[in-house]
Amino acid sequence: MTRSPPARRADFRRFEAITTRWKDNDAFGHVNNVVYYSFFDTAVARFLLETGGMPRGPDGVLPVVAETLCRYHREIAFPDRVTVGLRVARIGQSSVRYEIGVFREDEDEAAAEGHFVHVYVDRAAMRPVPIPEDARQALARLLAA
Amino acid sequence: MTRSPPARRADFRRFEAITTRWKDNDAFGHVNNVVYYSFFDTAVARFLLETGGMPRGPDGVLPVVAETLCRYHREIAFPDRVTVGLRVARIGQSSVRYEIGVFREDEDEAAAEGHFVHVYVDRAAMRPVPIPEDARQALARLLAA
Amino acid sequence: MTRSPPARRADFRRFEAITTRWKDNDAFGHVNNVVYYSFFDTAVARFLLETGGMPRGPDGVLPVVAETLCRYHREIAFPDRVTVGLRVARIGQSSVRYEIGVFREDEDEAAAEGHFVHVYVDRAAMRPVPIPEDARQALARLLAA
Amino acid sequence: MTRSPPARRADFRRFEAITTRWKDNDAFGHVNNVVYYSFFDTAVARFLLETGGMPRGPDGVLPVVAETLCRYHREIAFPDRVTVGLRVARIGQSSVRYEIGVFREDEDEAAAEGHFVHVYVDRAAMRPVPIPEDARQALARLLAA
Repeated sequence: MTRSPPARRADFRRFEAITTRWKDNDAFGHVNNVVYYSFFDTAVARFLLETGGMPRGPDGVLPVVAETLCRYHREIAFPDRVTVGLRVARIGQSSVRYEIGVFREDEDEAAAEGHFVHVYVDRAAMRPVPIPEDARQALARLLAA
Repeated sequence: MTRSPPARRADFRRFEAITTRWKDNDAFGHVNNVVYYSFFDTAVARFLLETGGMPRGPDGVLPVVAETLCRYHREIAFPDRVTVGLRVARIGQSSVRYEIGVFREDEDEAAAEGHFVHVYVDRAAMRPVPIPEDARQALARLLAA
Repeated sequence: MTRSPPARRADFRRFEAITTRWKDNDAFGHVNNVVYYSFFDTAVARFLLETGGMPRGPDGVLPVVAETLCRYHREIAFPDRVTVGLRVARIGQSSVRYEIGVFREDEDEAAAEGHFVHVYVDRAAMRPVPIPEDARQALARLLAA
Repeated sequence: MTRSPPARRADFRRFEAITTRWKDNDAFGHVNNVVYYSFFDTAVARFLLETGGMPRGPDGVLPVVAETLCRYHREIAFPDRVTVGLRVARIGQSSVRYEIGVFREDEDEAAAEGHFVHVYVDRAAMRPVPIPEDARQALARLLAA
């Protein structure tokens, strides 16, 4: 595989600190590939909660995850500190694409990076709906230049 | 997004049954997006353990995860039974690409699907090495037609 | 510590099969101590769902966990199959105490065992309420002799 | 159940900050009971890593978990910050009993508390061995007055 060089901190617009857990390490002694998606999920959810875009309950209009991807560049291992960088690459009618970098300790090159696509749906009907206006405004502030 | 139709069971070569857990459901009452990658990870690991390709310990030649992706088509919720379908799309010098479908109960269309790329590395040096011969032979049996 | 001998399958009234996951193994290569509580949680939730005692949503009367304990006798490691045995030790006004055994593969002695106490509460007020009558009847069928 | 009042911060000797994750919340919208044990596990592991008592690999003398218990006093929910308090209640020949409090945000009363018993074993033989001297000295500094 030819791969582009890892993202850097300057590529992102918002940062979230996450503490690793002993159980994040799998039998290979490093953070398991699955756990990176919990870093993604948590960074997006914190952003949405702060900006009013994430309901805690199961009703009404919800952002549901349509696609996620992660490329792993280097290992992270508990008890490393992790910082997650977030930017918004595209805001559509009903969907938004976040791009995400996972940084180990004070490193400037991402240990992993990927994307995370939310589609806003009406939960009862499970049909796409337009992104609510206040969420749209919050998302616009994370748009990459 | 234009999306191709969901994969079907016939698209895969090997199947693994997985039981969902109460904690797989997140605050939206469905299996959290992160958990699907644990389904992927588990199906690949079971295959490798059965065919001798997965060491339990941290030494020697290991398959490490280089990239994963998942597209989510429909919700799964505990206590649903899950079946994971596996095929191998490409075997390279050091890397292998699995394609994976996640099926809910007895449904024939995948609730989610994606890929999972392993690179075989020498753990001490963390450098790619050729896929060991017995792993290569096992992988070849999962190659899609 | 003086410890009583491990429980046996005959000590329980209901059994749930659970598949282990690659990520259940921690850096010591065995199922992490935390994961056993997910086995407990899942076995109780399946029982409650089948008997009508577990709402999926966040409203109304809910059983919330007041206390859990686990004693670990021997290791389990992915890809071991696990069976969880359940019995009810005591049904009070608002609370119920389950006793639980975790069995590895076809072993008759528990690899781990413990208890799990639910208190039924009104979710809005977070105050204990009497166990609903249909839940009480279901629980009574798991009472140890 | 008669229960003693929740522990307070002053009851503990060492504190670890932990960030909650979106996926820690279960379908009831609060941190799932299982997750508290990952808080316990992580706080103990960080202490041991800092004091040289926790090997990352699977060989030699390891502390393995013999018993854990948690009593849940009040809900925690993502994105709450959590602080874990640790003290050592008893150091035996091969085993140590930690007592642990989980605090939500800046609250002084524990949201949950419990204990965590480690037994030092020779991993190959899985037999108890005396606690290594440097671990014993580190543990002594956490002994409750």
